[in-house]
Amino acid sequence: MNAKCQFKELAGARLSGGESFIMQGRHFLQIPGPSPVPDRILRAISMPVIDHRSAEFGALGRHVLEASKTVFKTEQPVVIYPSSGTGAWEAAIVNTLSPGDTVLMAETGHFATLWHQIAVKFGIEVEFIPGDWRRGADPATIEARLTEDKARRIKAVMVVHNETSTGATSRIAEIRKAIDAAGHPALFMVDTISSLGSVDYRHDEWRVDVTVSGSQKGLMLPPGLSFNAISEKAFAASKGNKLPRSYWDWQDMVKINATGFFPYTPATNLLYGLKEAIAMLHEEGLDNVFARHKRLAAACRAAVKAWGLEVLCENPAEQSPVLTGVLMPQGHDADRFRKITLEKYNISLGSGLGKVAGKVFRIGHLGECNELTLLGALSGVEMGLAAAGVPHRSGGVDAAMALLRDGAAQGQAPVAAVA
Amino acid sequence: MNAKCQFKELAGARLSGGESFIMQGRHFLQIPGPSPVPDRILRAISMPVIDHRSAEFGALGRHVLEASKTVFKTEQPVVIYPSSGTGAWEAAIVNTLSPGDTVLMAETGHFATLWHQIAVKFGIEVEFIPGDWRRGADPATIEARLTEDKARRIKAVMVVHNETSTGATSRIAEIRKAIDAAGHPALFMVDTISSLGSVDYRHDEWRVDVTVSGSQKGLMLPPGLSFNAISEKAFAASKGNKLPRSYWDWQDMVKINATGFFPYTPATNLLYGLKEAIAMLHEEGLDNVFARHKRLAAACRAAVKAWGLEVLCENPAEQSPVLTGVLMPQGHDADRFRKITLEKYNISLGSGLGKVAGKVFRIGHLGECNELTLLGALSGVEMGLAAAGVPHRSGGVDAAMALLRDGAAQGQAPVAAVA
Amino acid sequence: MNAKCQFKELAGARLSGGESFIMQGRHFLQIPGPSPVPDRILRAISMPVIDHRSAEFGALGRHVLEASKTVFKTEQPVVIYPSSGTGAWEAAIVNTLSPGDTVLMAETGHFATLWHQIAVKFGIEVEFIPGDWRRGADPATIEARLTEDKARRIKAVMVVHNETSTGATSRIAEIRKAIDAAGHPALFMVDTISSLGSVDYRHDEWRVDVTVSGSQKGLMLPPGLSFNAISEKAFAASKGNKLPRSYWDWQDMVKINATGFFPYTPATNLLYGLKEAIAMLHEEGLDNVFARHKRLAAACRAAVKAWGLEVLCENPAEQSPVLTGVLMPQGHDADRFRKITLEKYNISLGSGLGKVAGKVFRIGHLGECNELTLLGALSGVEMGLAAAGVPHRSGGVDAAMALLRDGAAQGQAPVAAVA
Amino acid sequence: MNAKCQFKELAGARLSGGESFIMQGRHFLQIPGPSPVPDRILRAISMPVIDHRSAEFGALGRHVLEASKTVFKTEQPVVIYPSSGTGAWEAAIVNTLSPGDTVLMAETGHFATLWHQIAVKFGIEVEFIPGDWRRGADPATIEARLTEDKARRIKAVMVVHNETSTGATSRIAEIRKAIDAAGHPALFMVDTISSLGSVDYRHDEWRVDVTVSGSQKGLMLPPGLSFNAISEKAFAASKGNKLPRSYWDWQDMVKINATGFFPYTPATNLLYGLKEAIAMLHEEGLDNVFARHKRLAAACRAAVKAWGLEVLCENPAEQSPVLTGVLMPQGHDADRFRKITLEKYNISLGSGLGKVAGKVFRIGHLGECNELTLLGALSGVEMGLAAAGVPHRSGGVDAAMALLRDGAAQGQAPVAAVA
Repeated sequence: MNAKCQFKELAGARLSGGESFIMQGRHFLQIPGPSPVPDRILRAISMPVIDHRSAEFGALGRHVLEASKTVFKTEQPVVIYPSSGTGAWEAAIVNTLSPGDTVLMAETGHFATLWHQIAVKFGIEVEFIPGDWRRGADPATIEARLTEDKARRIKAVMVVHNETSTGATSRIAEIRKAIDAAGHPALFMVDTISSLGSVDYRHDEWRVDVTVSGSQKGLMLPPGLSFNAISEKAFAASKGNKLPRSYWDWQDMVKINATGFFPYTPATNLLYGLKEAIAMLHEEGLDNVFARHKRLAAACRAAVKAWGLEVLCENPAEQSPVLTGVLMPQGHDADRFRKITLEKYNISLGSGLGKVAGKVFRIGHLGECNELTLLGALSGVEMGLAAAGVPHRSGGVDAAMALLRDGAAQGQAPVAAVA
Repeated sequence: MNAKCQFKELAGARLSGGESFIMQGRHFLQIPGPSPVPDRILRAISMPVIDHRSAEFGALGRHVLEASKTVFKTEQPVVIYPSSGTGAWEAAIVNTLSPGDTVLMAETGHFATLWHQIAVKFGIEVEFIPGDWRRGADPATIEARLTEDKARRIKAVMVVHNETSTGATSRIAEIRKAIDAAGHPALFMVDTISSLGSVDYRHDEWRVDVTVSGSQKGLMLPPGLSFNAISEKAFAASKGNKLPRSYWDWQDMVKINATGFFPYTPATNLLYGLKEAIAMLHEEGLDNVFARHKRLAAACRAAVKAWGLEVLCENPAEQSPVLTGVLMPQGHDADRFRKITLEKYNISLGSGLGKVAGKVFRIGHLGECNELTLLGALSGVEMGLAAAGVPHRSGGVDAAMALLRDGAAQGQAPVAAVA
Repeated sequence: MNAKCQFKELAGARLSGGESFIMQGRHFLQIPGPSPVPDRILRAISMPVIDHRSAEFGALGRHVLEASKTVFKTEQPVVIYPSSGTGAWEAAIVNTLSPGDTVLMAETGHFATLWHQIAVKFGIEVEFIPGDWRRGADPATIEARLTEDKARRIKAVMVVHNETSTGATSRIAEIRKAIDAAGHPALFMVDTISSLGSVDYRHDEWRVDVTVSGSQKGLMLPPGLSFNAISEKAFAASKGNKLPRSYWDWQDMVKINATGFFPYTPATNLLYGLKEAIAMLHEEGLDNVFARHKRLAAACRAAVKAWGLEVLCENPAEQSPVLTGVLMPQGHDADRFRKITLEKYNISLGSGLGKVAGKVFRIGHLGECNELTLLGALSGVEMGLAAAGVPHRSGGVDAAMALLRDGAAQGQAPVAAVA
Repeated sequence: MNAKCQFKELAGARLSGGESFIMQGRHFLQIPGPSPVPDRILRAISMPVIDHRSAEFGALGRHVLEASKTVFKTEQPVVIYPSSGTGAWEAAIVNTLSPGDTVLMAETGHFATLWHQIAVKFGIEVEFIPGDWRRGADPATIEARLTEDKARRIKAVMVVHNETSTGATSRIAEIRKAIDAAGHPALFMVDTISSLGSVDYRHDEWRVDVTVSGSQKGLMLPPGLSFNAISEKAFAASKGNKLPRSYWDWQDMVKINATGFFPYTPATNLLYGLKEAIAMLHEEGLDNVFARHKRLAAACRAAVKAWGLEVLCENPAEQSPVLTGVLMPQGHDADRFRKITLEKYNISLGSGLGKVAGKVFRIGHLGECNELTLLGALSGVEMGLAAAGVPHRSGGVDAAMALLRDGAAQGQAPVAAVA
């Protein structure tokens, strides 16, 4: 056995099949999350752990619990779990629903499907509005279905804001209107795991009842924290529902959070990072952050179009600011392309998931991403397409540059003056 | 007012009431977990996140999943959750038990009580062998109870190996024998959250069915990872039980772990740290690690005795290598003492929990702890007792030094020759 | 005014005039040094400092002193100063020359001029072969001048291997031959501050007497270490020369280095980084490192040519693998262009120095640089040229991609198989 | 060959002779510098390097150059070298003196002797007032010698403020008065390498002409930065003196520093740390920092006395707040004791240097040191004395605790209220 430093394979090598490769230089992590973690945050999470029952921790706890609300745009409680986002999905369900309850979900893609499956595991009846994975949830369909539901059997409408598997967003404000138009009392639960901190989102204004989120996307943290923002109505529902729960239970969490503490040991070092991450978002300004994501996404789509490839999301109004799903030409395997591109150009792209596996690859452009990072990544894709023999036209990077240049000229510059 | 760095309150200041204090120099984190995280591990967790679906991650995943087994001393699956230890308690329950099942638990302290409460939340009937929080679970009582249970209604025996709230360990090997002597088929589930990596533990040899653990104690990591080591019998039980579950479900986890991957986004950066932590344990040698903990614990108890105070755990054979619970003299509040000691000497001690709140304080001596760290900490306790006006004799630090000196003479030196 | 973290302006903000700007995302540090420091090295330098008189330090010292020789390709002593490269220039002079001595230097650019000025400050007579800053030192001229010097008044030939101010390399092996052809006994001193670890260099094979280098370029470290590799002849010369010296003195340094220690306190944390850096160079393989730099440099020049701009270095055989100097079109200020590009695209480019100030900008492509980093950087330059209204053709990034794609096809892939 | 991580030997292992040892837990670095570097500073120095010619760097440069003045208590220029303190000694000499000049120095110990030797290397005539290494420089002797010097041949009085090799301070304010009383125009140059940031020091008030310092002691940084604070008189002297110089030259440095930049590449990452270090000193308050050092030093001396050992510095008024030199009993080798103590208890103590080698060991209590760190260290010394068979009485740690307890009672508590 040879003497390798543990960091080597983490930082410098990429393993492929039975071989190992040394990839030189900075890795381009262009998957739609985990997104690259800024240096400031990596340094913050490496500070020594403190006593989670100390006054010092209480101050940290109060800070991050309050600061988190500004990102969800809510005045209501936000709870933070030491878990990945999957846990926060489960938390939303076990706190508000009871076995046999019916919910309405929309099949926007792989992650909507996974959330659906979790609900089923807990005995929930899911009406799953079918979808082709190329658009967001349709407000009109939801309104129609709720209007039909005279018996008010539907306890909740559950929608994924940004479908990480496809790059299609759902129009949450319009779905809120749809629910209102139907006059339906269902809870409204939204997964923002891959949109929070990257796409405009308004928990209170849109009267969402439970917003689910995670740390490793727009919040630019490593995975390991997840969130539920909770409306008064949802919190009330949690008192009567029948699913057994402990770890995910809101009651203890909200009560103890009031003092800045947690009912069980929190992931202290990730909370250090959360504090730093929210500070960074506000230094840039949330609106600037959202504009930047839109601008970069438009540039990415311009590149895809120039290559002669197809963006998976068909509805321009729903194309994601966070990632772009790209359809491979018939007969070309997306995973072979991704593997070649990784090995030649040291860039990770997202795979197709679920029913688009092998047919789609995804380009993440979220979190700590800027013009040049994106253009470097698009260069990798363009060269990778050539290396993998995927039919395409060149000129994608040029098209992206043209758009970013024009964008800049229109005053959408990345530069925000600060006092 | 001047511009303060965000790190200040995390790293240098301790908040007390409405005031804030600058504490100079290195903080002594002497609570029984989270334990101080070694610099090597803090650096490891601050490496950039990688694609959790990449071949590189697969190699990391396989490594930590296999390496974890060496710490549990098992050849059977160990699953790793992105959660705190509380989650792993819940996982043990929801994977193996069904509502209405009866289990036998022993009231060793606050954490046994909390695990009990979780079981109750999931509809489990708990026979709770009462305890006075001053000793471990009694094998004879367990044997007697199981022998009585002719109907085999008891589905599991659930015991805390090291009661973090009291400093008493339970004799797991003897409890195994008790179960065998009773010829009882109950599952055997053991919480090693605060013992794993600090106290000798043998999942396979002792035929434990589910071992629960966490990252932030003997593994010297920040909180955020938890573990279940799973016997074949427990895994079989998980197929038939009726509690709904998804996040904690072993089936998907074990299946997908076989390739080094996880069914949902893992806490990648903590896995970097886990790899480093296990390497460190093996560099020192697990037996040396355990001997060190015993030696430091003996020194701590010598100090307590010299002060004329009482160790909470009455049974010398069960006194914990990990922490020492100390009874306050009548009429003296442990929390007032801890607060004064923290403010004067920059040391965090553990509070009394549950029914010993205010009556007990706890000294952690686990993980990255050595002779001088402990003696510094005991100096802080000795001066803090004086500062808080707690009746005691001086000489505690001297007594600890005497023991450590003798221990060293007996060849229990902290120094292990390495090739 | 609000409380700002110290890291903010370091990491996230760029100051411009009286305003401050938040630059989002990862900064592209494309100056020809300091080059970007890899994460592994940043983590290494942040480990706690150790006793520089301990056996542990001795082992570190011996390791880095020996390992450094592999980078210089020498079996002779390499001394390491806690200083920037300027100090190592001075060390070469004060150890080998005496006031009134004559040396022969070649005006390859700003840094040759600076080294010249230092020599003059120490009373050395410098024959400065004039140059137009668009090529390396000419071996034929050197040979002619040495041949003329029948009196052997010239004590040393001093040449810059890679002129950081221009992007022209000098052909050291050919200059060695020129000295030999002239049969001249002059010492041969070479500055490799910006070439070592990026461009092939052979201290012993080329019989260089003093090789000067620094940490912050091909060695991928922060600035703060500098080097002299010393031939036997140079070391002998240092015994008789008359310049007073202490800090830079080789005698004590070499003697004490034999045990792994230093005559005064070393920059321990940078030595941790040096150990890691040299390990990284050997993991990739020095020849692969050099090939990578050549490939990226060729791509960069292809972009410059496509833009219709002129590479400063006129001799293709001397164009630097480390950086590319680019001439601005007449009437356009390079610093204005750089400022606009920095503010719009968060990329630092090198300024023109000395007599090409304002007329030249420099693109660094050294150290932790790879295809996508370079292409991101070139995208920034291409968009910056447009933003600053500098006349140019587009298509530079395309040209670079074409070259890199072809290079890859020719088997010059960045990927090295590892056992 | 076995697979060891590079970090292992740095962080966890101590090498001794041919063997290697694993030392568990946190190392106690109790040498009188480099002192332990606080986590905040280690994180700061590991941020990515920036362009040292950027506006952003200029802001950093201006900040640290100004902030440094507050630590020297001066309004005059402070220059910062990328070098160890030895370089700043040399800088003081080569900027102000000429070969043949006479200076007056006091033999306070090993470091005064080294500074003397450097002066001699540069052709300076040194009148070296002999000393027994057990006290500071004597103001009366200096006054007498200056009064005798009617010809004003003495160009400078050069004194070490805190003799790191002995633990004796010199009374700088009184020496200033002595110079004034003699009416002598000599420059006054003071080495504060191991006192700055730990002991009260006033460059302007005491009209010191050159104050020399370094980063790795009271400033709590790794080694690699050094300082000269320069009076107007010294700066004027530097214009006429005859020693050749470049790297250390004040003229360029001061001129270019005015804009926040440096004449050659600065050690950027250490400057990040310097910014953080100075912030930490002011958060605690310089007077609190000085009081803390005095209190800890008194406790350390109380321990030495209780052991029946002798403090090297005989004059109580000159005993150092930074370190305590301890005389070994006759016939006992200090280095053997230090080696045994290191191997058994993982603590580094300072060796005797120069003419007290083997006879003295030194306990550092500076920088990031507090009560419990010191008491842990003293425990290590007390147990180490026993382990090495050095005759002593026990009770040293007790004596130190008694003093610290009383000190606290007298209101010299380590705790400073902050707004």
